[in-house]
Amino acid sequence: MRINLPETDQKRIVIIGGGFGGLKLARSLRNSGYMIVLVDKNNYHQFQPLFYQVATAGLEPSSIVYPLRKMFQKSRHVYIRVTEVTEIDPAKNRVHTKMGILNYDHLVLATGADTNFFGNQDFAKNVIPMKSVSEALYLRNALFSDYENALTSSDPEEKQAYLDIVIVGGGPTGVEVAGALAEMRKNILPKDYPELDCSEIDIHLVQGGPTLLAGMSDEASAAALKYLTGLGVQVELNARVTGYDGEHLLMKDGTQLAAKKVIWAAGIKGNTLPGLPEAAYAPGNRLKVNRFHQVEGFENIYAIGDLARMPEEKYPDGHPQVAQVAIQQADNLARNFILQKKGKPPQAFSYKDLGSMATIGRNRAVVDLPYWKFQGAFAWVVWLFVHLLQLIGFKNKVFVFLNWVWNYFTYDQSLRLIIKPRVKR
Amino acid sequence: MRINLPETDQKRIVIIGGGFGGLKLARSLRNSGYMIVLVDKNNYHQFQPLFYQVATAGLEPSSIVYPLRKMFQKSRHVYIRVTEVTEIDPAKNRVHTKMGILNYDHLVLATGADTNFFGNQDFAKNVIPMKSVSEALYLRNALFSDYENALTSSDPEEKQAYLDIVIVGGGPTGVEVAGALAEMRKNILPKDYPELDCSEIDIHLVQGGPTLLAGMSDEASAAALKYLTGLGVQVELNARVTGYDGEHLLMKDGTQLAAKKVIWAAGIKGNTLPGLPEAAYAPGNRLKVNRFHQVEGFENIYAIGDLARMPEEKYPDGHPQVAQVAIQQADNLARNFILQKKGKPPQAFSYKDLGSMATIGRNRAVVDLPYWKFQGAFAWVVWLFVHLLQLIGFKNKVFVFLNWVWNYFTYDQSLRLIIKPRVKR
Repeated sequence: MRINLPETDQKRIVIIGGGFGGLKLARSLRNSGYMIVLVDKNNYHQFQPLFYQVATAGLEPSSIVYPLRKMFQKSRHVYIRVTEVTEIDPAKNRVHTKMGILNYDHLVLATGADTNFFGNQDFAKNVIPMKSVSEALYLRNALFSDYENALTSSDPEEKQAYLDIVIVGGGPTGVEVAGALAEMRKNILPKDYPELDCSEIDIHLVQGGPTLLAGMSDEASAAALKYLTGLGVQVELNARVTGYDGEHLLMKDGTQLAAKKVIWAAGIKGNTLPGLPEAAYAPGNRLKVNRFHQVEGFENIYAIGDLARMPEEKYPDGHPQVAQVAIQQADNLARNFILQKKGKPPQAFSYKDLGSMATIGRNRAVVDLPYWKFQGAFAWVVWLFVHLLQLIGFKNKVFVFLNWVWNYFTYDQSLRLIIKPRVKR
Repeated sequence: MRINLPETDQKRIVIIGGGFGGLKLARSLRNSGYMIVLVDKNNYHQFQPLFYQVATAGLEPSSIVYPLRKMFQKSRHVYIRVTEVTEIDPAKNRVHTKMGILNYDHLVLATGADTNFFGNQDFAKNVIPMKSVSEALYLRNALFSDYENALTSSDPEEKQAYLDIVIVGGGPTGVEVAGALAEMRKNILPKDYPELDCSEIDIHLVQGGPTLLAGMSDEASAAALKYLTGLGVQVELNARVTGYDGEHLLMKDGTQLAAKKVIWAAGIKGNTLPGLPEAAYAPGNRLKVNRFHQVEGFENIYAIGDLARMPEEKYPDGHPQVAQVAIQQADNLARNFILQKKGKPPQAFSYKDLGSMATIGRNRAVVDLPYWKFQGAFAWVVWLFVHLLQLIGFKNKVFVFLNWVWNYFTYDQSLRLIIKPRVKR
C-alpha cells in the first residue's frame, strides 16, 4: 500500500525525523518548490535540552514540545506523516513505513541518536534513559513513586535504595539532571516528605573520564565539579560501571552502589534504519557523509545531525553531536537543494562553533563562547535566555518563562505528579 | 506488615480518597487534634469538572491536578499514603492496603464514583470513559492518533470510522465534551489537517432520556440542545445503546453507528471496597448513610460524596452525585468530629443546593441558580470564573486562566500532542 499523497510534478524530498535538523530543513524548504514529506513517529518536535526539567518536575512536556502540524499549518507543500519507518529501499527510491510505502526523489535521514548501552543488556533493561520526553516523564514518575515507597519501607537497606539516585555520565545531561535533583533534595523534598530524612538521599554522578563536561573548557569542567560538589552531589571521576541488575550497580573497581534508579546519560548512538549497506556506517552507528551531506555510496540520500559523521579538518571524527551542528547542516542542505533547482553547484558544509553551555542548579551555569568563557550567575542568566529563545512557539516561550519565574521565587517545582495515561487497546 | 506511622495518643481518622470530599475533610481537620491519614492511589487531587478540557487538548493535566503532599506541607498531623486499599476489616478497625495494614479509630470512605457500564462487558472493554485525568489523556491521544490514521486510510468506510465520534450520555460531561469537540472540528482541525475534509467528521451525542442535562432546568436543557445543534452535533434523544464491538455501536432501534471512538459519559456507580456487608449498599453501589454520615450498621465508619446515599426530605433517593454535595458533607462531618472531641452532639446534614452549570463551546453556557436561571455569553463568563475560583492552587488558577485567554483569542487549543510516558518495570 502506498501512502496517500497528491500527484504533482514537484520533486519530492522525504525527511525522516522532526528533531532540530529535520525540522529546520522542512521549514527552510517549505516554499522552495519541492514537495516536502516530513515523517516522524511522534506528532511533535521535542526540545531535548530541557528534558531534564521535565524529569525533575519543573516543566510540563507540553511546554517543550511543539505540534508538527501546527508548525506547518500554512505550508501547502509540506506533508506530515506520523508513522515509523521500517526500511529504506535505495534501489527503488522508496521507504517502507508502518503506514505504507513512500517514494522519494531525495531522502534526508535526520533520525538523530538514541541511548547507547554499549551492548550491555543489563543496562538496556534496567536503567532510565533520557532521550525522549516519554523517558523524562517516566523518570519523574519513578522518582516520586520511589519516595512514596521509601516512606513505608521497614527494611533500612531497601529504604536507602529507594532514596538513592545514581546518574551515569558526566556530560551536559548528567550534570544538569544531577544539579536539578540536588536542588530538589534541598528545597522541596524536606517540605513534601517531613517523615523522611532527606539528607539520607545520596546522589551519585559517575563519570568514566577524568573531567565533567568533557567537550567544554577546563574552566567549565572545574566549575561544574565545584558547583555539584557544593550541592552535595557525590561525583566519582574515572569510574566505570560494568553491570546493573535493577538493584545494585557494579563498578569496575569491584565496589557496588545500591539504588533502584540509575539514570543513564553515558552515551549515544545513531538511530539507524535497515536498508543501507554496512559500508556506509562509521562507529557509533553514524552514517558517513561527504561535505555535501550525501551518504557514502548514494547520490540522493543525505544524513544530517547526530546521525551524520562528516569529517572536517578541525573535526576528523565528525562534528560533536549537538543541536547546533544539526541546525547548521540543515541550513546548508536546504541551500543546496535550492541551488540545485537553479542549476547551480552545491556548497560544502563547514561548522561554525557558536559555543556550548550547561547549567548546574540555581544561579549557576558554565558558558564557553568562542572567545569568552565564563561561569556563575551571569552564565546562568545567559543559559536561561538562550534556551528560551531557541524554544519553538511563542506560547511555549511564555509558559516556560512563567514556570521558571514561579519556580525561582517559590523554590518549588510544582509538577510533582505521578500521571500516566490509561493504557488500553 | 503495618504501615509506618508515629505512635501518638491522638485519635486516628483514616480518610480514603483525595477527591472533593476527602480533601475538604482532611483540610478542615488538619489542626483539630486528630491524627489524619489520607489514603489515595494517586499522589494528587483531580479537578473533575475540567477533564473534558484535558481530553480536548485545551489544558494540561498538571493545571487541573494538585499534589496532595504540597497541600499538606505545613500540616504536621496529616499523613499521606499513596497506595490502594484492598479491603476493610471493620471487626478489627483496620484497612488493608497494598502498602500494609492501617488501623483507625474512625474511617471515612470518600472514594467517589467510577464509570458504570451497567454490566455490559463490551462497553467496559471498548469505550473510552472520562472519570480520571489518565482517561482524559487517553482520549486525547486516541483522538489525534485516529486523525493521523484517517489521513492515509484508503478504505472510505474505515476512514469515516476514524473520523467519527460518538458520545454516549447527555449529562454535563457528555454535553461539554461534545461542545468542545465541535469547536475543535470547526476551528482547529481544518488548519491542522488540510488534507482531510473536516465537515465529514460526525459528532453524535446519544442520550437515553428525552432531554439533555436532565438534572437541570427545562430552560437549560433546551438551550444546551440548541447550542449543540447549532455547532453541528447530531443529538439523538430517547436513544439507547445496546452493544459496541470497538467498531460498530448498536442502538436499541436496530440501527448502527460506525465509530472507532465511543466516549462513555452515561452513568456512574460508587467505588466500593470489599469488607462491608451487602446490606449496607443501595443501588448504584452507594453506601447507605444516616444524616450523620455513618454507614448503616457502623458507629465509626462514614461515607461522604458520590459514594454516600443519604436520603433527605427533598432527596428521598440520596443527593445528586456532584462536587457540592461532597464538599458540604465533608464540612459537616469535620464539624461533627470537632464537636465530638468537645463532648457535644453531632449535627444532622442538610444539603443546600447552590445551583449547577454546564458550558457548551465558546461563549455559551447554561447556569441554574436557586432563584435565577440564565443562558448564553454571560452564563459562560460565570462558568469560567466559578471554575477558576474552585481550582486548587494559585499557580493552577493563573495557568488555567492564561491558557483560556490564549485559546480564546487564538482559536487554538495548542496541546495537540500524543505523549505517553515510556512504559517499563
